[in-house]
This record gives sequence, C-alpha cells and structure tokens, in this order.
Amino acid sequence: MDKINVEGVLLTSLKKIHHPKGDVFHGMKKSDAGFSGFGEAYFSTINYKDAKPWKKHLRMTLNFVVPVGTIRFVIYDDREESITKGNFYDVILGVNNYQRITIPPNVWVAFYGEGEVYNLLLNLANMEHDPSEVERKDELHEIEYKW
Amino acid sequence: MDKINVEGVLLTSLKKIHHPKGDVFHGMKKSDAGFSGFGEAYFSTINYKDAKPWKKHLRMTLNFVVPVGTIRFVIYDDREESITKGNFYDVILGVNNYQRITIPPNVWVAFYGEGEVYNLLLNLANMEHDPSEVERKDELHEIEYKW
Repeated sequence: MDKINVEGVLLTSLKKIHHPKGDVFHGMKKSDAGFSGFGEAYFSTINYKDAKPWKKHLRMTLNFVVPVGTIRFVIYDDREESITKGNFYDVILGVNNYQRITIPPNVWVAFYGEGEVYNLLLNLANMEHDPSEVERKDELHEIEYKW
Repeated sequence: MDKINVEGVLLTSLKKIHHPKGDVFHGMKKSDAGFSGFGEAYFSTINYKDAKPWKKHLRMTLNFVVPVGTIRFVIYDDREESITKGNFYDVILGVNNYQRITIPPNVWVAFYGEGEVYNLLLNLANMEHDPSEVERKDELHEIEYKW
C-alpha cells in the first residue's frame, strides 16, 4: 500500500468475488472503517484523458469506489490545522487496484480518466449533495501539480 | 411507467446529468422514497444471456440501480399475507431506462443479463450481507416463468 501523506485519507482494500455468471464487488458496509453515515450515493464518469478539476467539500466525507475503468485521484491538503498541510496524495484506483478511498472534508480533490473505454466512480457520501458546501477551482492549473 | 403489480415494489426515476467530461448519475438519497437505512453497498455483474436465479431475502430491502448495461429483473410474490400473492413483476432497467427499483423482503428475485457488453448492478441495502437471511432456488425453472 502507498504511504498516505494526507491526514484523514484512508485507503481500504475491497473484495472482488468471482462468480461464473458475473462477479460481485464489495463497496462499503456500515461497520467499515471510513463510514460516517449515509446521505447519498451517486455515480460520476470521467472521459479518457479528461480531468474534473479541484473541488473542496466543507462538510461532506467522500467514499469513492471505481468498479469500471481506471481513475487517477489527486488530493491537496491546504488545511491550516493539518499536520500534512501542503502535501499532495496521488493514487490510481480501478478494476486493477480495487480499493475504496475515504476523503475527509476540507481538502481539494481532482480526478483524471486513465481508462480508455469507460471510467465509473461511485461516491458514497455521508450527506446529500448541497452546493453551498462545495468550493471549486474550475481550472486544473489553479493548484500547481505535475499531472 | 409500468404498473407495479407486486406490493411494496417501487420504481423511482433517477436523473442523469450531462457533463462534457463525463456524466453524473443519481443513485439514492437518504430522503428518497424507498430508503430504509444503509447497511451495505455492493456491485453485482451479470453476463450477457446469463441469469442469476431466485433469491429471497427475509430481512433485507434491496435498492437496485443499473449504471452500466441492461438487466432484466423478475420478482415473484408468494407471501401468504400479500394482496398481490401469485403475481410476477418483470422490468428491464439500465442506461436507457434509468430507474431505481426498491424490493421489499420476502419476495423472490432473479435477474438476467440483457446487455451484450457489460451489465453492472449496484445494490444499496438496508443491512449488511447475512447469509442466514437468504433463501435460494438454484435453478431458474424452480419457479415457473416464461423468460
């Protein structure tokens, strides 16, 4: 496992269970590490070689699972009080690295489509979508990082 | 909307939100009709022209969403106390009919892969997987239905 150098971020390996008629993939159980309540589940897709730029949630904890394709996530910590302030965490998740990433509120997240065919992300969030708790930087270069 | 002829089954239309870098698909909010608590989220896949035969959950409420491909669901009601006892409900869900199906405990469910490429099902269940609350009929013909 990669060293996680942003405080509060958690990676959790998930089981893929083979079935001759179609496999089963774990997502999240309420007893799992990183679970902090259920508010909403939604899917996001990201095209090959496209990035959805930086967002920061002020209250939402994200739990991302990638059941189809491959997505690269970059997290940037600019929290004043954080012991990992200034750090970036970069991880590629998907069918070949099937893990859940838990992302606490108040860090910046962007993601990039690595898979050529289809990249699907499930977010299991601890609250319902509320645009008032989201900050955005609409251009990827607004946070300097070597993608 | 199809008439739902099995008591307690609910179909809920879900939004697909277009985004130039990859669409967003709703799944479930805790304030939605059919939500009865979060226990576990998992994915199941079903190969083209394969069926996963009948299961009956004694306590779990299922919430199925099909974000990739197309899956046919058949529900059979043999509950003694049900006003729809003896009925079957048959529905095809997927990217071209993007709805959530809520299935109460104590009815039989089987599903069939209609999509040729990949068929993915998300279950948002109100309890964690517990094999002691699942009954199975391992052969599709054990419940007579014209697939």
